[in-house]
Amino acid sequence: MRFRTPAGAVRVGEYDPDAEVVAAAGRAFDRASVDVLPPCDPSKVVCVGRNYAAHADERDADVPDRPLLFLKPPTAVAGHGDATPLPPNTRVEHEAELAVVIGTQARNLDAGAAMAAVEGYTVANDVSNRTDQDREQNWVRGKAFDGSCPLGPVVATPDEVPDDATVALDVNGERRQSGSISQFVFDVPTLLAEITAFVTLQPGDVVLTGTPPGVGELTDGDRVAASVEGVGTLEHTVVREPPA
Amino acid sequence: MRFRTPAGAVRVGEYDPDAEVVAAAGRAFDRASVDVLPPCDPSKVVCVGRNYAAHADERDADVPDRPLLFLKPPTAVAGHGDATPLPPNTRVEHEAELAVVIGTQARNLDAGAAMAAVEGYTVANDVSNRTDQDREQNWVRGKAFDGSCPLGPVVATPDEVPDDATVALDVNGERRQSGSISQFVFDVPTLLAEITAFVTLQPGDVVLTGTPPGVGELTDGDRVAASVEGVGTLEHTVVREPPA
Repeated sequence: MRFRTPAGAVRVGEYDPDAEVVAAAGRAFDRASVDVLPPCDPSKVVCVGRNYAAHADERDADVPDRPLLFLKPPTAVAGHGDATPLPPNTRVEHEAELAVVIGTQARNLDAGAAMAAVEGYTVANDVSNRTDQDREQNWVRGKAFDGSCPLGPVVATPDEVPDDATVALDVNGERRQSGSISQFVFDVPTLLAEITAFVTLQPGDVVLTGTPPGVGELTDGDRVAASVEGVGTLEHTVVREPPA
Repeated sequence: MRFRTPAGAVRVGEYDPDAEVVAAAGRAFDRASVDVLPPCDPSKVVCVGRNYAAHADERDADVPDRPLLFLKPPTAVAGHGDATPLPPNTRVEHEAELAVVIGTQARNLDAGAAMAAVEGYTVANDVSNRTDQDREQNWVRGKAFDGSCPLGPVVATPDEVPDDATVALDVNGERRQSGSISQFVFDVPTLLAEITAFVTLQPGDVVLTGTPPGVGELTDGDRVAASVEGVGTLEHTVVREPPA
């Protein structure tokens, strides 16, 4: 977990979910006493669309013959506990996802060796403004707006996440999305090989792996809990932005 | 101009094109003695497509009813004098553009006040892999690959650039593209207002403003010179990458 101490220092520590304590550099902090930050500071977030066939179906879209890629910039990144802004006059939906945090600079990865570039897995919500996404060629207004990428709260090592881990999302305590990463159209090594054929991934960069079915609308005041089995639960709230 | 001194220090200095000298912190360096760097270190590059009607025509595409936005990540940025890699087995084209360098953090700009957020203008080549661009929803393989955004060599203040400045590009000494920024479909303040309705621009971020007609293919060994009247000329070479 990456966090700010009560003294304002940014630290990375080991989180104990039972004791609700995070340990860093010989000190232990109660979780309630620290600000949880996004678990990394990506220079870019490379995202994958329609990577579960059942979600492509619900969006009336074909499963792509190769990964459908798009980008979110650093200004999209938010953390556990933050309030996600909804752009004025838009329909915004949640998309719970397994997120891959890159550990080492990577270009032209072979799928067979790609996992060596991975630091671990975290949880993301690919918050999506459908009003604009459905009108634009590149999903910038739709997917890259400020705060559209809550990430966290922790990074788990890949061996802590089962091959059929459940990705799920609740809104106000009610289950909306659920799927298993065993249903990926393209698995993580295949995605990393495809992306790095064109783009260098840097340490701290993040790859989102697509969302399972069950996407639905978010409205002002909603409380979101997105989870990946073996990682944990990313919680955030939602607030409607007033017109500028 | 941003550059590395012979001692390896990164500096920003005032470039005198007649004397071919760059002055920084009381010292003067011969231009030939320094490495010219990209003029800023953007956290993102926000690009605009089809912002000259004559270029939309040559791509058989409509002029959009609002700015067509797309993104390039920091790994796309290169500088004056660099060698732009062409992805294997792709048709790659040049797109000379006026580039806006952001000076102050900006969100929800009014068009009427937007120029206050601008540090100045530089030159860009929006290097475009048509083989993939024409097959994908979001132009990541097509427009966001490593080195696809040469920028530079200097930043001029907006008052140094006439309202009808010519944007041009030569390949191996032969004129390929030419147009005037008076032909913009959306002017710079309108673009900044539209982008910052969704995305915060940070100091050093760059906005590309679209390309005039005359785009054409680049091949291994080409020498490119892109210019914006009142700014200067960005030169780079081109090298075909071997298959991985």
